[in-house]
Amino acid sequence: MLNLDRLPYGGDYNPEQWPPPIWDADDAAFDQAHINTVTLGVFAWSLLQPDEQTYDFSSLDAAIDRAERAGRLVVLATPTGAVPPWLASAHPDVMRTDFEGRRHVYGQRHNACPLSPSFARWSVAMADALAARYAGRPSVIAWHIGNEYGGACYCDACARGFRAWLRARYASLDALNTAWNTTFWSHVFTDWDQIVPPNALSEHWRGEDHTAFAGITLDYRRFMTDAMLARFDAEKQAIRRHDPDTPITTNFMGLYRPLDYHRWADALDFASWDNYPPTMHSEARMALTHDLMRGLKQGRPFWLMEQTPSRTASRDVNPVKAPGVMRLWSWQAIAHGADACCFFQMRASRGACEKDHGALLDHSGRTDTRVFTEMAQLGEELERVGGRLLDARTPARVALLYDWDSWWALEMADGPNRKLSYIDVQVAWYTPLWRRGIGVDVVPVDADLSGYDVVLAPALYMIKDDIAERLGAVAARGGTVITGILAGHVDANANTFPMDDPGPLGPLFGVRVDEVDAREPGDRVPVRCPDLDATGDGGLIFELLHPLDEHTQVVARYAGEWFAGTPAATCRHVPARDGDGQAWYLGTLPDEATLDGLLLAAIARHGLCDPAAPAAPGVEHTVRLAPDGRTVHFVLNHGDADVEVPGPVNGQDLLTGRQVRRGAPLALDAHGVCVIEAD
Amino acid sequence: MLNLDRLPYGGDYNPEQWPPPIWDADDAAFDQAHINTVTLGVFAWSLLQPDEQTYDFSSLDAAIDRAERAGRLVVLATPTGAVPPWLASAHPDVMRTDFEGRRHVYGQRHNACPLSPSFARWSVAMADALAARYAGRPSVIAWHIGNEYGGACYCDACARGFRAWLRARYASLDALNTAWNTTFWSHVFTDWDQIVPPNALSEHWRGEDHTAFAGITLDYRRFMTDAMLARFDAEKQAIRRHDPDTPITTNFMGLYRPLDYHRWADALDFASWDNYPPTMHSEARMALTHDLMRGLKQGRPFWLMEQTPSRTASRDVNPVKAPGVMRLWSWQAIAHGADACCFFQMRASRGACEKDHGALLDHSGRTDTRVFTEMAQLGEELERVGGRLLDARTPARVALLYDWDSWWALEMADGPNRKLSYIDVQVAWYTPLWRRGIGVDVVPVDADLSGYDVVLAPALYMIKDDIAERLGAVAARGGTVITGILAGHVDANANTFPMDDPGPLGPLFGVRVDEVDAREPGDRVPVRCPDLDATGDGGLIFELLHPLDEHTQVVARYAGEWFAGTPAATCRHVPARDGDGQAWYLGTLPDEATLDGLLLAAIARHGLCDPAAPAAPGVEHTVRLAPDGRTVHFVLNHGDADVEVPGPVNGQDLLTGRQVRRGAPLALDAHGVCVIEAD
Amino acid sequence: MLNLDRLPYGGDYNPEQWPPPIWDADDAAFDQAHINTVTLGVFAWSLLQPDEQTYDFSSLDAAIDRAERAGRLVVLATPTGAVPPWLASAHPDVMRTDFEGRRHVYGQRHNACPLSPSFARWSVAMADALAARYAGRPSVIAWHIGNEYGGACYCDACARGFRAWLRARYASLDALNTAWNTTFWSHVFTDWDQIVPPNALSEHWRGEDHTAFAGITLDYRRFMTDAMLARFDAEKQAIRRHDPDTPITTNFMGLYRPLDYHRWADALDFASWDNYPPTMHSEARMALTHDLMRGLKQGRPFWLMEQTPSRTASRDVNPVKAPGVMRLWSWQAIAHGADACCFFQMRASRGACEKDHGALLDHSGRTDTRVFTEMAQLGEELERVGGRLLDARTPARVALLYDWDSWWALEMADGPNRKLSYIDVQVAWYTPLWRRGIGVDVVPVDADLSGYDVVLAPALYMIKDDIAERLGAVAARGGTVITGILAGHVDANANTFPMDDPGPLGPLFGVRVDEVDAREPGDRVPVRCPDLDATGDGGLIFELLHPLDEHTQVVARYAGEWFAGTPAATCRHVPARDGDGQAWYLGTLPDEATLDGLLLAAIARHGLCDPAAPAAPGVEHTVRLAPDGRTVHFVLNHGDADVEVPGPVNGQDLLTGRQVRRGAPLALDAHGVCVIEAD
Repeated sequence: MLNLDRLPYGGDYNPEQWPPPIWDADDAAFDQAHINTVTLGVFAWSLLQPDEQTYDFSSLDAAIDRAERAGRLVVLATPTGAVPPWLASAHPDVMRTDFEGRRHVYGQRHNACPLSPSFARWSVAMADALAARYAGRPSVIAWHIGNEYGGACYCDACARGFRAWLRARYASLDALNTAWNTTFWSHVFTDWDQIVPPNALSEHWRGEDHTAFAGITLDYRRFMTDAMLARFDAEKQAIRRHDPDTPITTNFMGLYRPLDYHRWADALDFASWDNYPPTMHSEARMALTHDLMRGLKQGRPFWLMEQTPSRTASRDVNPVKAPGVMRLWSWQAIAHGADACCFFQMRASRGACEKDHGALLDHSGRTDTRVFTEMAQLGEELERVGGRLLDARTPARVALLYDWDSWWALEMADGPNRKLSYIDVQVAWYTPLWRRGIGVDVVPVDADLSGYDVVLAPALYMIKDDIAERLGAVAARGGTVITGILAGHVDANANTFPMDDPGPLGPLFGVRVDEVDAREPGDRVPVRCPDLDATGDGGLIFELLHPLDEHTQVVARYAGEWFAGTPAATCRHVPARDGDGQAWYLGTLPDEATLDGLLLAAIARHGLCDPAAPAAPGVEHTVRLAPDGRTVHFVLNHGDADVEVPGPVNGQDLLTGRQVRRGAPLALDAHGVCVIEAD
Repeated sequence: MLNLDRLPYGGDYNPEQWPPPIWDADDAAFDQAHINTVTLGVFAWSLLQPDEQTYDFSSLDAAIDRAERAGRLVVLATPTGAVPPWLASAHPDVMRTDFEGRRHVYGQRHNACPLSPSFARWSVAMADALAARYAGRPSVIAWHIGNEYGGACYCDACARGFRAWLRARYASLDALNTAWNTTFWSHVFTDWDQIVPPNALSEHWRGEDHTAFAGITLDYRRFMTDAMLARFDAEKQAIRRHDPDTPITTNFMGLYRPLDYHRWADALDFASWDNYPPTMHSEARMALTHDLMRGLKQGRPFWLMEQTPSRTASRDVNPVKAPGVMRLWSWQAIAHGADACCFFQMRASRGACEKDHGALLDHSGRTDTRVFTEMAQLGEELERVGGRLLDARTPARVALLYDWDSWWALEMADGPNRKLSYIDVQVAWYTPLWRRGIGVDVVPVDADLSGYDVVLAPALYMIKDDIAERLGAVAARGGTVITGILAGHVDANANTFPMDDPGPLGPLFGVRVDEVDAREPGDRVPVRCPDLDATGDGGLIFELLHPLDEHTQVVARYAGEWFAGTPAATCRHVPARDGDGQAWYLGTLPDEATLDGLLLAAIARHGLCDPAAPAAPGVEHTVRLAPDGRTVHFVLNHGDADVEVPGPVNGQDLLTGRQVRRGAPLALDAHGVCVIEAD
Repeated sequence: MLNLDRLPYGGDYNPEQWPPPIWDADDAAFDQAHINTVTLGVFAWSLLQPDEQTYDFSSLDAAIDRAERAGRLVVLATPTGAVPPWLASAHPDVMRTDFEGRRHVYGQRHNACPLSPSFARWSVAMADALAARYAGRPSVIAWHIGNEYGGACYCDACARGFRAWLRARYASLDALNTAWNTTFWSHVFTDWDQIVPPNALSEHWRGEDHTAFAGITLDYRRFMTDAMLARFDAEKQAIRRHDPDTPITTNFMGLYRPLDYHRWADALDFASWDNYPPTMHSEARMALTHDLMRGLKQGRPFWLMEQTPSRTASRDVNPVKAPGVMRLWSWQAIAHGADACCFFQMRASRGACEKDHGALLDHSGRTDTRVFTEMAQLGEELERVGGRLLDARTPARVALLYDWDSWWALEMADGPNRKLSYIDVQVAWYTPLWRRGIGVDVVPVDADLSGYDVVLAPALYMIKDDIAERLGAVAARGGTVITGILAGHVDANANTFPMDDPGPLGPLFGVRVDEVDAREPGDRVPVRCPDLDATGDGGLIFELLHPLDEHTQVVARYAGEWFAGTPAATCRHVPARDGDGQAWYLGTLPDEATLDGLLLAAIARHGLCDPAAPAAPGVEHTVRLAPDGRTVHFVLNHGDADVEVPGPVNGQDLLTGRQVRRGAPLALDAHGVCVIEAD
């Protein structure tokens, strides 16, 4: 869709914050840093439209003209991520009502009510005006609608919108009452207007994850996801009236809980996201997130739309990226499927809350800083690699299921253990495979699973549609499916099934959960794995498993507490045409080594691990496959020390030109990167 | 009052949440588990009354009919603990305004405004309709009004109600101003309408325990207690119009601070409560709470109305009860005076926030689970014991004073130490006696103390009415009274007395508190007890004691800090007819061993400890006395290991039939129970 | 201005809280304790004006008459720190709207809206009435307006007031938009009415320190400071209509962030403050605060208006002052420039939230308590010293810059490290000098620096006006200036400068900050100081320094992390007439010993440390210089043990009469004090 001959490298640029003399210096600096792409217009609304009647595109005209003269590509944003003061002042319905029930007044950003008629009217008008003016400009390679959609609103308009959404979903109050199990606590609704948004003034206490009725809260999150998507769609349609072809996206936030990105995926022409990991040691988590973003569009490349060149400003403590880390993380994104490497931001704002967020150019504008130098070097590297990686795919024989509904339902549940984090479980399960360079697609539960040898379904709390059957099909053709704690506990409305856990997954996994015990995070229970000849421990959740028959083998047992001896993990042998399929169930959250051992044992028979692949702690190995059949291997050293690993393949390092031999020593500096095009 | 021939065993059952086919299976399971009682109708309002004009008792009719056919007893609840959507929607005054001043909209439960005219009208109408229909049904052995009354409302109706309550209490503003000490901070009220509820928008900061004026906040809690009691009373009266005799209760929550249960006690025909301890090691605290509930009705048996068969769902981390624990805690309740053993719940809800709360029947409905099996075994045991324990009393020569006013006033006080917990002090003082099997009545400060040898008054912060005189009377007849930290500091309005601490208690205890120092919890100060030949330490509060004359003996001195050498605990010898009475004062909160030593030294002369009683860590020994003179000893092993203790009495174990000999070894399994009817 | 012959000793007294019979006992007790001054009328509004039409000064008449008969001085307070119920009830605009946007109703104190027309009208009327009645009474030596001004309001009246304030400051919206950098996030204001107060409903999240736009939040704090000052001024003017001469003050709260006391300083005739340190080991912090309060009025003496005789009540844990501590801290205040030693409070309230706050007379009214005895002894001491210390000055050759704007801007900044506390940095830098008895003036950034040899500018985050030039002038005349982390980062609107850090300070300090790294508090990085031959560590902030040329010498380097070897501290040699001036820059927050070493090395050449001065851990040495040329040395032992130090000077201890010899051993008890008038 994006017919590019080079990988976009650049990012957010707001020249309107400075006087024109700065712009020349910026352009020279961008050239020096090999910046080929700028994202323009984000948050420019108050300049582009100073009042209801007036549009003034002069600042944007100038920025685009200048980009084109410099030969740079443009990602053109609708500025609707932050409303202008005049809009909020004249039309207070634009501002949200928060979870506490308080109508907000003007301030901040990302806080327009998605049901506000005024916001709908004026945001669409803005998108329309922008597209009318700039559609067809060859420099504009993509549209970027709004910015980082998120949050929620609880105003009366949203309440009305929610009721309409519910009518469409349930048709009758009887169906709704059944779905929400309203006979509990006398909640049987007899009129649609009795329904109010679930927040601190109605069904919730102690915040967003404590709700009396999971059904209404789940539906409200689905509704909010859809309501914001409707705003995106409306702007997209406005653009499409003038520009039928240029791809349109918006920047996601990766593992962002409030919005179910799988509901959005179809609406985007390509996926893009902003990578701000919570710590400096989030390698596996970032990799998983890239794979999730890639999975939004069936494996098609995504864009890394934002990352910081050096440091963030929004954390309590904001460390800088050490030398090499920015480059390393950039290549990691590309290794996992990114077809663009963009940053927030090209030049640091003088004032307001992001003034200390990293930028290509800091307040001094100097081009001899470490950060600028590293970015220029990376720009040169990417230029050298050119378009060779564009539209490459990532072959994977393993799928990991990621599901917002399960995430939501599990973390809003009363019992068994609120200290369990969905993300933590996902990352824990993903890490052993990541560590060994095994490609993983992170996909929604309704993805086509027919191409995978292994399907991991960690914390598959909610069973929707035919996922049980499709997991069964994987095993029935000889594949391996793995699930565990709290799997199959609830249906699409967060109601339990009238059966033992893991609910509809029981027959496939051949196991019954007799009881679920829970402990504080530090309160570990020993777990014995006879086949691994190892004893580790488990935490948080302890499901007491009962194999249904002799086809289910016990692979781990608890070795402490009153339930010592009880099965903690099992493997079901599923008859298949070519040897057996397998269905593994892990009833606790084991320590890292034990989980590593169990997962690798589970998938060992599929030959996914390349014995010659780089294997050193913190060294990542990833592969992309270009449309023309070339294979590119990425070897990424996330460690702080130089390492030597076996070369993964015969080929040439695209960054240095050096030859790499499969199995021969390959040296990597601390945070070093090697991009090998296979012979 | 309850003429029963068996101990009610069963609990909350909401068949309306399932279709009729489930009911047959339930009935069979109940029979198998010896369930003889079901609590029906809790939270059923929206089914029983789908709108203002319509009542529909068909579901309840069916449930009662079915219970009666199965020979089960019925506890019939008014469903007013959760309002239906139509009521909140049509009459918003039904919903509360919270501590932050926010009017809530429909959601959750237990949140009807007690001053709401609409709630008053419709809840009474519901109780009336229920009673009109079901009064006289022989299966209905008790009425259960609402559910777990609690919380508070701060709406305008409550403000008006508060003013009326204050007029009734004080008659004049002068009296009110004096009571609240309003000359401080210019608060002299000159019109009743100037008074607003004390909350986050008026007198409070940092939550409910930080108030500028303790007087108004104390009175508001008293008013709220009375306001909710008025709702209970109104429903009770409605029932009594149709049913003059069947006992009426509501389920309390034990150590629940917001409502002063002593103000409610007279209104209940029998006490009942729900036992959900905060940890799995709350043996002494549960025992104290049982004794408190028993003390509400002058020692008459109470009901254990709810406990979980296995796990709760409302905590962050929800462990299950290990094998034997449910049985052990059930017998502990009976040992302390429970005449019923009921559970929440008979069948687990499919959805909403309690779906993972334990139940006799979980979502699978199986009857071969561990939990079902243990409940069936307990049911069988109770059936075997039959009515032999009904209406038995608990002989106690020791009283412990528990006072909501002191609790409130102490924990809302600015100074000396907010990290002091009233419950912690109560449990600390109770534990040494509990550990030795010494029966304790936990009673209000206005209880008749004339029958006790020993009266413990921990944290008796507030002196009301003639409690000082009545404590003096105990000592004057040779008894022992024990008090300590912060005792006698304030009067009924939380104003200090114009004298040294312990205020009006000074003459009795023969001591003056010169100063009160305070430290963080971990900052302990050594305490030397010469008579015990032991040095322990104290924490949180350090009162520097000054004996008033030579009749007061120093029993402990501080051995550190600048006040080293100062008396930390004293004993006053009070002339009495038969030997001296004693009045002990403990000026700090000692460590467990030191407190144990001091309290046992204080009561040693009364011969309360049976030297042959079971004495092993975690083994509890309790006695009940049947109306016909039979004595039953309970020996309860709260430990995780098997133990052997001396038999407390000659008799027979009612559970196993085995003979027990006083002093001979008595073996108990981990969590084991022995119920010995003395010869 | 205050022509006194004795040091005022006494404090807050509210006899109106007791009946007259108490008053006689109070008077006798005051005489016994040498109390010569009482502060009357604080919070008496509801008594002095029971309704809009009525004033009743009888209680105050009586109190003043009685004070005068006893020969006591009176500090007369306007009672406007707490509004009466009738005022809030009749005029709800009196009450504030809080940060969360909630209009409060009647309660507490210190919460009148500074823009409320009703409050303005009635508070001024009260001040006027008071002054009309009591002006000219010879006992009245000072007026005390309101009490502890503080907090903030966010109501509509404040919004209007804020807009007017902004118009006056910026004249045009263009200027305002530039100052606030509103092109960021589409915030360009096109109408003054679009501006709303920055709070939880507009620009803030996670509380007062998280704002999207520092510019608006900074300006709101300045506006609030001015708005409350306007209320003070209005009352002052009302008093001046009747009393042209008597000095007027209000009691400050020391290191109180919400109000910029430097904006208030001119309005006060003399400074006064209330000393309630956060811990019992705040010696250096208290000293700094005294010096800051002294600096408000160019070094003129201030009053210690409040301290507790024994304990506070408002903390979670409230320890008492050990024997000698109250006396020690009183003398410390005098040593740092206090010309009065007053207390809250003379008699403890019976009820409400300060009833357990310490007092000269506790609830018993006894005069044989330890606290009373110590106060009487101190009173006797002060009486003996008489007026000999009045109006003495504190010679200092070192200035420490303290700046509310830097404090605000730094602590509301996103990035680099929110765990950095402005106060902590100030106290850390102050402590090495305090420890050695080096006099320090704590002054605003616009103070005259021409008299100082050394100027410390810790955390000088904001550069306003000509401070860079004036610091340069200090160095240019051979002085030493020292700054460090985050210095020069922003301008008066919290916008960065278009240059490297430390912005306009760069040329003077000869250094550039290349990057700023940040770590969690416990994550320390080694720092090597070659000249000190020592290796310590730094924390929180790690600026990577780059000396601009050879005139800048590296005095410390990081010895760990990826930036090991990078300069961490520098010293610039600045050409001056008599030898070089020096400009030191500390790029991290070093541990105590390293900071001590660096700061002492920086100032060593100025000969500020007296080698014979008392030097023992915790022993403070301070000097005051009387108007008649006498010099008084204070030696204060903050330690818990007796010590012996060298006498600092030949002279006589005014407290004991003993002779002191310079260099000869001088013994001090634990918490002991020696006040030596030099020969």
